[in-house]
Amino acid sequence: MKRKAILVSIDGLGDRPIHELGELTPLEAAATPTLDRIASEGLTGLVDPYAPGIPCGTDVGHLCMLGYDPNEVYSGRGPIEALGAGLEIFPGDVAFRCNFATVDQEGKVSDRRAGRIRDGVAELARLLDNISLNEDIIANFAPATDHRAVLVLRGKGLSPQVSDSDPGGNNEGMAMQKVQPLDKTDAAIRTAQAVEQYLAIAREVLGKHPLNRQRIMSGQLPANAILTRGAGIVTYCTPLRERFKGLRCAAVSGEATVQAIAKMAGMQNYTHPGITGSYDFNGKLKAAAVLELLADNDLVLVHIKATDLAGHDGRWDQKKNIIEQIDTMVGQIKANIPPDTLIAITADHSTPCTVKEHSGDPVPAVIWGKGVRADKQVTYGETSCSHGGLGRITGNNYFHILIDLMGFSQKFGA
Amino acid sequence: MKRKAILVSIDGLGDRPIHELGELTPLEAAATPTLDRIASEGLTGLVDPYAPGIPCGTDVGHLCMLGYDPNEVYSGRGPIEALGAGLEIFPGDVAFRCNFATVDQEGKVSDRRAGRIRDGVAELARLLDNISLNEDIIANFAPATDHRAVLVLRGKGLSPQVSDSDPGGNNEGMAMQKVQPLDKTDAAIRTAQAVEQYLAIAREVLGKHPLNRQRIMSGQLPANAILTRGAGIVTYCTPLRERFKGLRCAAVSGEATVQAIAKMAGMQNYTHPGITGSYDFNGKLKAAAVLELLADNDLVLVHIKATDLAGHDGRWDQKKNIIEQIDTMVGQIKANIPPDTLIAITADHSTPCTVKEHSGDPVPAVIWGKGVRADKQVTYGETSCSHGGLGRITGNNYFHILIDLMGFSQKFGA
Repeated sequence: MKRKAILVSIDGLGDRPIHELGELTPLEAAATPTLDRIASEGLTGLVDPYAPGIPCGTDVGHLCMLGYDPNEVYSGRGPIEALGAGLEIFPGDVAFRCNFATVDQEGKVSDRRAGRIRDGVAELARLLDNISLNEDIIANFAPATDHRAVLVLRGKGLSPQVSDSDPGGNNEGMAMQKVQPLDKTDAAIRTAQAVEQYLAIAREVLGKHPLNRQRIMSGQLPANAILTRGAGIVTYCTPLRERFKGLRCAAVSGEATVQAIAKMAGMQNYTHPGITGSYDFNGKLKAAAVLELLADNDLVLVHIKATDLAGHDGRWDQKKNIIEQIDTMVGQIKANIPPDTLIAITADHSTPCTVKEHSGDPVPAVIWGKGVRADKQVTYGETSCSHGGLGRITGNNYFHILIDLMGFSQKFGA
Repeated sequence: MKRKAILVSIDGLGDRPIHELGELTPLEAAATPTLDRIASEGLTGLVDPYAPGIPCGTDVGHLCMLGYDPNEVYSGRGPIEALGAGLEIFPGDVAFRCNFATVDQEGKVSDRRAGRIRDGVAELARLLDNISLNEDIIANFAPATDHRAVLVLRGKGLSPQVSDSDPGGNNEGMAMQKVQPLDKTDAAIRTAQAVEQYLAIAREVLGKHPLNRQRIMSGQLPANAILTRGAGIVTYCTPLRERFKGLRCAAVSGEATVQAIAKMAGMQNYTHPGITGSYDFNGKLKAAAVLELLADNDLVLVHIKATDLAGHDGRWDQKKNIIEQIDTMVGQIKANIPPDTLIAITADHSTPCTVKEHSGDPVPAVIWGKGVRADKQVTYGETSCSHGGLGRITGNNYFHILIDLMGFSQKFGA
């Protein structure tokens, strides 16, 4: 018998004990009657999204959560961001993550984010899109969130083995880096030259744009350069539908990265202006979207980014509060699903408030539904799940267990 | 934030229930207030140094404990023993473990250890070092512990694919074996011939040595032959410092094998005549060394061999007693470390007193420190750790978890 399932991905959920919370984690300290009920009736455990002790990015964490091997499908962050920004990307293309930045006359980066520019970005991006470079290379460019954007180079003989022009995270005041080939192939040399040519064009176009003159006059930093990083190529992912007996699946997420991963996995992306990847996620709207999608899908992924944001900001109070809102959202979903539906709750990685970054700590996980083997744990938390019946498994294991409970797995042997 | 850590390696710690100890293991029966406190406040689990049910040597167990894949860096025991004995070994060299042995006139091995010869070994070894063989092959030889020694062959076109001349563990009375190539390459054939030539020279040099005449006259077994085994080549290990964001690390061990592994991992080896790998390890001295090294290092490994010796000797009373001394040593360390320091305690393998050999039983492990997720276990023992929050993980997993808690891990993805 085939069953439907909802996969709740609570971004950066896992945490470490917080002194102010009486050495509990935000999840353990939060009032979560629905999540605890699900844990009590379900099968809990700890999930290492990729492997024990290895911190994952949101991209890798979600690839693993959907049963993909990131070593096979993952090459740089560029392609994922490009997909997220709505750019098409084909095998052979090379994609880069970009920032609009402020660069002074000597070529030094005075702000890697051009004062976190937001307004007018779409207009600037349009001028940088669809540009012909030497050797029949075409550059496509699209804005992403705020000061972020993506660049896709298309042409013959390109390579992702090129260095970043972006000097990196904490290096304000450093020079913009020359893009270098990282190996001795013609493709890497060609690609590095193409990026350099593109970046020079971008500086010229942006430097004389009226929007930047206005910004300077009003005391804002101009977006007068593009920085590139994370070159990568797209790799073909076999869609979930092909891998698992025609599994129909959809995703509800307000975040570009997760939307991109969902697209790679062949999932339908549900979009709605009220569904965001920010602090004020709309749980009610997400719950309604999940229930709507469940009518025509077997698996519905619902992703909440706000927990990760709170982790990065070190705000355990906020994180606890968001988890309580998620509890309400899950309650709304649980109250309205068909009787045989499974609910799986996990995360793509931990973002402990004490670390303010992704960590390698495993994440608490649970699978709930009629006929699922229950264990003795009665709450949903990092410590209780560490004693749960799923044991300690990988994100890939977890997804395959869910797929099997749904009745979509393939027998190995006969 | 980066944090320091102490990694306590209690050699052969894991054991099985001992009837005389009320079906407790030596660790469970020992009075270990500090270790129990650490387990109670920390995160416990079971570690399979390599994989479940696979007994490891001290070399492999420590390689895994430091996050290396023994299949990548390990080829035979010879190179590790050679490093431990202070011989240089380079890519292309082939190294062998050796015993001084007693062989009768018919070529039969009457004692594989020449009566566990100790005195005079250095002098005999000197005569067997730096010998030129056919085809420009040079043989270097150095004594190790007691009757043990190492041989390194250096020359063009050598191979570790040769058989042992040593008939093995319980085969006293068997003939010394002819060294055979294990594949059909010229290198294996050349190497087998070189070893045979060397062993003939050794028999000649040793047979006429006055020390052996003295031994025979005083009723002792002569060391009149060399037995070879464990041919291997050296493989390059990427130092921990390069693998993990500049991690500075040092080791405190009195045992040659662990010192050799530490050297391979690029760790600073602390040496002091009072620090031994024998029963009477000096815990106070080791604790002081750890604290001294911690000033300039991020990770300090401290190794205690005595537990393994007691396991091999089947002395559970002794093993229990040593564990209590280790508890005191850990207490001295714990009382004097900076507040954010992590303490990790594990072992390279189990050496159950009932087996008197390394076994594949997992070893109890714990990680302790501020902000580490605690579990519900309150003692440090084989059974309590089997219910711990770390679950059942590999030695490699354990090391990566520690590195992540130290803040030295690299994010996979973005």
